[in-house]
Amino acid sequence: MVIQAETNTPSAILDRASLLLDAFDGPGRLTLAQIVRRTGLPRSSAHRMLERLVQLRWLRREGRDYELGIRLMELGSLAVHQDRLHRAAMPFLHELHRATGFVVHLAVLDGSDVVYLDKVGGDLAAAVPTRVGGRRPAHCTAVGKAILASAAERRLAEILTTQGSRTRYSINSRAQLDAELAKVRAHGVAVEREESLPGFGCIAAPIGDLGQAAVAAVSVCGPVDRMLFDHRLSAPVRTTALNIWRHVDDGQVRVRPTLQQHARPLNVGPRPLAPVDRRARDYA
Amino acid sequence: MVIQAETNTPSAILDRASLLLDAFDGPGRLTLAQIVRRTGLPRSSAHRMLERLVQLRWLRREGRDYELGIRLMELGSLAVHQDRLHRAAMPFLHELHRATGFVVHLAVLDGSDVVYLDKVGGDLAAAVPTRVGGRRPAHCTAVGKAILASAAERRLAEILTTQGSRTRYSINSRAQLDAELAKVRAHGVAVEREESLPGFGCIAAPIGDLGQAAVAAVSVCGPVDRMLFDHRLSAPVRTTALNIWRHVDDGQVRVRPTLQQHARPLNVGPRPLAPVDRRARDYA
Repeated sequence: MVIQAETNTPSAILDRASLLLDAFDGPGRLTLAQIVRRTGLPRSSAHRMLERLVQLRWLRREGRDYELGIRLMELGSLAVHQDRLHRAAMPFLHELHRATGFVVHLAVLDGSDVVYLDKVGGDLAAAVPTRVGGRRPAHCTAVGKAILASAAERRLAEILTTQGSRTRYSINSRAQLDAELAKVRAHGVAVEREESLPGFGCIAAPIGDLGQAAVAAVSVCGPVDRMLFDHRLSAPVRTTALNIWRHVDDGQVRVRPTLQQHARPLNVGPRPLAPVDRRARDYA
Repeated sequence: MVIQAETNTPSAILDRASLLLDAFDGPGRLTLAQIVRRTGLPRSSAHRMLERLVQLRWLRREGRDYELGIRLMELGSLAVHQDRLHRAAMPFLHELHRATGFVVHLAVLDGSDVVYLDKVGGDLAAAVPTRVGGRRPAHCTAVGKAILASAAERRLAEILTTQGSRTRYSINSRAQLDAELAKVRAHGVAVEREESLPGFGCIAAPIGDLGQAAVAAVSVCGPVDRMLFDHRLSAPVRTTALNIWRHVDDGQVRVRPTLQQHARPLNVGPRPLAPVDRRARDYA
């Protein structure tokens, strides 16, 4: 039996609670034994904390299985909906989806990942395996590259260190990333073709003050052979990014969508895709 | 200066963390002073815990203001997407929305409230101020009444005790609730007209085994004067509820939507509404 010295400072206990909840990132349902294995916490201590988290409804217990609970759903939803950027962005995200027919994402940078704050997409959305609150390696996504293009060197140093590639087209060297970010800075939009997800591509624009580090990015995403990788899509994406930023700090967020129909709604669904010529990249 | 005896058991610390996070349910941004006032926790203890929660990214600090953080977004999103009911329901919710044109909700009972697990609705969704992870008094909503109709007496006793009415049409007595739930049991669907939200109505069906307490409910919701409060809407809602329940416990959830187009898509938006004749209730 392992006897483990435990500190009971509030910080140490919060760290343990965080560790317990992090264990559910992946499997979903865990028994006490599995949680003990995943966290390395002593069984009795883990059990007491789990039962308290069940009482607080952060977790739910069904028989011997623990799952994430309804209070986390509520707090997570509050976190998204209280976010000022998200609140300012919502009408513009819907407008961009209506104008283009593609799936629209709003994302922020968190460490070396992007985290999605919103996803708007009608039927096509189901074909794109992203979700609000979900994360992806920043350098594999258009939203990530759009944000990284204005990021400080110390943030870039984190990229590509721990993360692997998502597809065979993903950026996998610092030189490749630097060349890509230079293109983003030159064109004001980031393009991604099957670097995150086979068959899909994205065009993203950074959100924030010109010359400052971007705070977020907005993108359209769809089957790579139906996307228009030129101004017909990049113009409405950039307009959306500008509109969102203009409305973030208005206090009482004014909702006044101004984007016109820039591209014909495409109503496309995923289908088997032809090979993509990777040399024929054209930026808007 | 108030000297307060504090216990540092893990449970007491988790309770305090929960109290701190609960303080953000409403205002969104809070200073330390506001949090101390709302929680009654000693300032130094609150400050230490808040800073640790910032480090864990459960909270975010901007200057003197604290906000809910990105890790809660992630955990909340995981909680929703790992939910087996939600996973089984998703394709059927989208299908019900396509078939009817109305906003579709999936909800569970939590205490005397319903909590929404999903909301599918295209453009009309923006007009309905519900959100995933949000809650409403169960007795004011069609989904709530659909679930309560099969609930044990001890659950019903909680209803109407702490919750007020949402509109002048909301149920506000136990006798009225009992009469309403009898109708739900007789017809298999629950109807709600402007009881939760002026101008809007809903039709809901319970999800679960016949003769057992329902575990959830699904509804369609739209402008009350455009809803069809008869079998044309109630039939697809009931079919959806049956399909969801049939797919919940299949382990590897099979996705095989079977619902046909029962009602013409209505593509309606909210507009000024005529007064509703409350006596003309017809159940399907």
